Amino acid sequence: MVKRYLSLCTFDEARHRLYTSFEAPCRTETVPITGSLGRVIAAPLYAKYSVPEVNLAAMDGIAVKSRDTIGASDQSPVTIRDYARVNTGNVIPDAFDAVIMIEDTWEDGEAFQIRKAAAPWQHVRPAGEDIRKDRLVLPKGHVVRAFDIGALATYGIGELTVTTANVGIIPTGSELVPLGERPKPGQVVESNTIMAQVLFESMGAHCMRLPIVRDDPGLIENALKTAAQENDLVVISAGSSAGTRDYTAGAIAAVGELLFHGVAVKPGKPMMLGKIKGTPVIGLPGYPLAAQTVLREFAVPLLEHWDLAPVPKFPVRVKLSTPLGSDLGFDEFVPVSVGRIGSQFWGITRSRGAFVQMATVRSNGYTHIPAEIEGYEAGHELDVYLTTDPANIERTLIFSGAIDPILEELGNIAHDQGLFIHTGSAGNTGALLSLERNACHAAPMSLPAFSSLRECSFIRPFLDSLDLVFVNVASQEQGIAASREISLDALDEVCWINSRRDSPARILFDSLLASHGISPTRIRGYNNEAATPGAIAAAIKAGQADAGICSKALAVSHGLRFTPVSQEHYELVMRRTMLADPRIVTLISLVKSPEFKAHLDRSGAYDTSLTGQIRRISPGSGNTLPVEL
Amino acid sequence: MVKRYLSLCTFDEARHRLYTSFEAPCRTETVPITGSLGRVIAAPLYAKYSVPEVNLAAMDGIAVKSRDTIGASDQSPVTIRDYARVNTGNVIPDAFDAVIMIEDTWEDGEAFQIRKAAAPWQHVRPAGEDIRKDRLVLPKGHVVRAFDIGALATYGIGELTVTTANVGIIPTGSELVPLGERPKPGQVVESNTIMAQVLFESMGAHCMRLPIVRDDPGLIENALKTAAQENDLVVISAGSSAGTRDYTAGAIAAVGELLFHGVAVKPGKPMMLGKIKGTPVIGLPGYPLAAQTVLREFAVPLLEHWDLAPVPKFPVRVKLSTPLGSDLGFDEFVPVSVGRIGSQFWGITRSRGAFVQMATVRSNGYTHIPAEIEGYEAGHELDVYLTTDPANIERTLIFSGAIDPILEELGNIAHDQGLFIHTGSAGNTGALLSLERNACHAAPMSLPAFSSLRECSFIRPFLDSLDLVFVNVASQEQGIAASREISLDALDEVCWINSRRDSPARILFDSLLASHGISPTRIRGYNNEAATPGAIAAAIKAGQADAGICSKALAVSHGLRFTPVSQEHYELVMRRTMLADPRIVTLISLVKSPEFKAHLDRSGAYDTSLTGQIRRISPGSGNTLPVEL
Repeated sequence: MVKRYLSLCTFDEARHRLYTSFEAPCRTETVPITGSLGRVIAAPLYAKYSVPEVNLAAMDGIAVKSRDTIGASDQSPVTIRDYARVNTGNVIPDAFDAVIMIEDTWEDGEAFQIRKAAAPWQHVRPAGEDIRKDRLVLPKGHVVRAFDIGALATYGIGELTVTTANVGIIPTGSELVPLGERPKPGQVVESNTIMAQVLFESMGAHCMRLPIVRDDPGLIENALKTAAQENDLVVISAGSSAGTRDYTAGAIAAVGELLFHGVAVKPGKPMMLGKIKGTPVIGLPGYPLAAQTVLREFAVPLLEHWDLAPVPKFPVRVKLSTPLGSDLGFDEFVPVSVGRIGSQFWGITRSRGAFVQMATVRSNGYTHIPAEIEGYEAGHELDVYLTTDPANIERTLIFSGAIDPILEELGNIAHDQGLFIHTGSAGNTGALLSLERNACHAAPMSLPAFSSLRECSFIRPFLDSLDLVFVNVASQEQGIAASREISLDALDEVCWINSRRDSPARILFDSLLASHGISPTRIRGYNNEAATPGAIAAAIKAGQADAGICSKALAVSHGLRFTPVSQEHYELVMRRTMLADPRIVTLISLVKSPEFKAHLDRSGAYDTSLTGQIRRISPGSGNTLPVEL
Repeated sequence: MVKRYLSLCTFDEARHRLYTSFEAPCRTETVPITGSLGRVIAAPLYAKYSVPEVNLAAMDGIAVKSRDTIGASDQSPVTIRDYARVNTGNVIPDAFDAVIMIEDTWEDGEAFQIRKAAAPWQHVRPAGEDIRKDRLVLPKGHVVRAFDIGALATYGIGELTVTTANVGIIPTGSELVPLGERPKPGQVVESNTIMAQVLFESMGAHCMRLPIVRDDPGLIENALKTAAQENDLVVISAGSSAGTRDYTAGAIAAVGELLFHGVAVKPGKPMMLGKIKGTPVIGLPGYPLAAQTVLREFAVPLLEHWDLAPVPKFPVRVKLSTPLGSDLGFDEFVPVSVGRIGSQFWGITRSRGAFVQMATVRSNGYTHIPAEIEGYEAGHELDVYLTTDPANIERTLIFSGAIDPILEELGNIAHDQGLFIHTGSAGNTGALLSLERNACHAAPMSLPAFSSLRECSFIRPFLDSLDLVFVNVASQEQGIAASREISLDALDEVCWINSRRDSPARILFDSLLASHGISPTRIRGYNNEAATPGAIAAAIKAGQADAGICSKALAVSHGLRFTPVSQEHYELVMRRTMLADPRIVTLISLVKSPEFKAHLDRSGAYDTSLTGQIRRISPGSGNTLPVEL
């Protein structure tokens, strides 16, 4: 039986039902102040006593009655017999209202002579100066900060009542293995409920995470009943789609009430909301990014609505580096990496595949596209919510272009220098358009030999309009990867998988065909374009094609035969003005560093003879010019 | 023996010596991923296997070879005999490269008929789509986020190595009692090392907090030796001033090396830096705000320099509501409360008394005034570092004026509605100037009867230039508080303590004297102005004066006799345009609420007959007009 969503609840309607269908549990707990950082105060806190409780000396000297000192001057010193000797912090006896510093007194037997009148309260910390007994220290709802805790201690408050909630978390799915167990092919480590637990605990909740329940309606019903009985909120992961083994919706309906199944949110569509004896049940989709959306946009807000510690949001206004499409009628959430170029924040968007967790890992923010929006042009300005300390944006470089594993390693070394590199995947043309918009710091591109750059139709117009520089990262042999011996004279007898139109591999293949006088129309699979070089190698390995163009490193790592044809250069392409950015200066010094070169050499796949060279092409003459930093 | 600082180290020099005088300990520890939120990764993390490890079906249907499907159409269906039945998430056998959804197939005995060709890789999640084995997941230095943890679990990473440091923390001072013990007058609860511990632990450090050491050089030396031996950093609190019982500098010098004592930083001047067998020792001043500065500006940055988790900083550009003075030659740190008025952020600064911890508690940020600055005019724009979630600023109201305890209670009720009220203390004139600048949302002021407002010289000019409204919070009886019976006919036989020049109490006193035909010059103590009404009551109670003007509530709470003279009105004064701000609408509804009135009534000190009334004075006619929201 294939089940279908009856109808999708809108994002706003889903939020509204979430907030209005349940009573807040108003659960609190008492914690010592040392364990209260980031918690939300559940009842206002009042000072147990005044601080200071009595008048204290703020200097070493003598405590006096200020009225006794009136008229004292160099001409007519006054002798003070009624005084108390005090050091800083000492209690001032009630009769006195001022302190004269010891260096402004002259001992005169048992008495002291002074030559200047003391103003009332001079050098006195009056009782209650910091706070008076029973006055409010912190209101209900305040999120405790480190320095608040010092004040609480000072005012005699050793523990406090903070908000909390008990959350039961149920992982379901026969394909799941628990963390620590090596998944077999087709199995997955259960991770949604781990994310949920970490997130909820950071808000002050207590989590009860059940063992993995396999796809069995009875077992799921039992788990739901147990979790709902002992908790204020139940979150159940997966089994929420409309597949044959998706039992969760039915199980919720069997032991309680299913309020809705399916929201017009991407990723996150299979979300469910249920109620078991008054307890809310949120059903997470199984795909991790969909689960993240439901956790962040529904479960976290519900706990915030119940006064648990909010998860901070840092909105920034960001322009889009590239166009961003969106499905009308769906609220979409898209991972974004934000960087600053000049005074403008730019964002590169990432894969929205609901299973590509690396899209979240590699981004530093996300954006929300409302349901009524069909998409945005490049350059459109929108709000991005940062998932990193906003200060990190100043240390972030955003790249748009071809992602090579060595870029990640460069990023790793750069991270040591406090630089964050975020790369959005784009073809060569997309990357160049991004450079034209000044919407990325640099474009990593795989390019043919430098001497033939001006012959590349995709780059020529940009060479003339932009003053570009090329920083060589590494070079690689490019050639034919194949599952069997291929003769260069019989290229048309082979089933090929082709490369993207603006890639150097495609250019290489086309020139190879031309040099052998073979028309592309005679090539089987010529129109079959793989998205990435890695996909080419994988397709050949899996037998879906016989041959394709990729790097030697990829061919070798997939156990394929390799026939070298040409050199491919992996270059960071950027506007020449970018060389003045200190972050780029740091980056280039890292590209040139022995550490990075050693890493390239170790991998065995790269030629480092040009690594770190910076060149440009004179727009006028077309000459290649070296660039000095 | 009075010791003096030999010379003060500048802020920059102190930071430089802190960063350069010690080797980073590079201490790490391994934690399970569930305990890694907010920690800093100490070594790059790589995927243990590809995810997915093999090609998986993304739909329920049949896995096929795409090349077998070429040419299928409604006119010429193709029969597929070589296939595998798959559900979403199932492994696709190596031979197949596409999935056809079950609804697009027609069963034909053992075979399936299809009417549309399958594109290669359609409905397939290719192996390594999310990540490939051994590819970088997260670089060294990354601060772990909740959703990173899900990805780590998915990629088979169950634990990770994160940065840490061991910090020994020593509280010293004979006047200190530990948290939980009720301090006697002159004693203080030890709180500096509690703040330090909470702060350091939030960065991932392990803290060893020693018991309180009393002011004894030998005991302090022993504690330093123990702490330095077992830790990467030692923080010792207090005993750092130049007083007779300040042994810390000497103790550091005795068991190690004192690098400097005294920095040109306020608060925080008595800071020390020492070194014991290579281990840094930071000496905190005893006063809490000075200790906070040294913790935040020196200890935290050192741990950040050692790659522990950074304490987030949220800078905002803020205009100053009031002028801010600063000592030339000192880097000053001042607590600030920030609110937004229109599109402009405004900041009200707070007490810089180094013992007034409430200044930090009541603020939502702080600013740093460099040493070369003598101060700023009102309206000057500077950076404020927020100590709260930046989103809270939108929910913050800043007031400038007279602080009454009931304002705190109003703030407490407001907090329940998600409103934060921050009040800077200002006299009536200062408060009115702030309103004129549009630099606060409202000014809480104690005012005489409404009918005589136009007679108040301090308010008259503003009534004509600003369109002000007055929201009554409560009224109070104002009169003579005295330690003994006072005859209204013999006011000049009494020793008085007077009120501030622009306060209603002062106006009341002056009119009282005038009505009895007594010249102020005949009044003993007339020029003796107390800073606050509370200080007046306290001074009389302590016998430093016989009488003064204050509210009945203050007189009663100090056990003084009280002779009522007039009514004083506590009003929220604001520009009329402010009534359109939804936060002000909420606030006024709270002032009018039965809950707030009940609170006022319970305290017994307030007259609530006018509470919630909104009035204004016609600038032309001077008539009193009611204002409707």
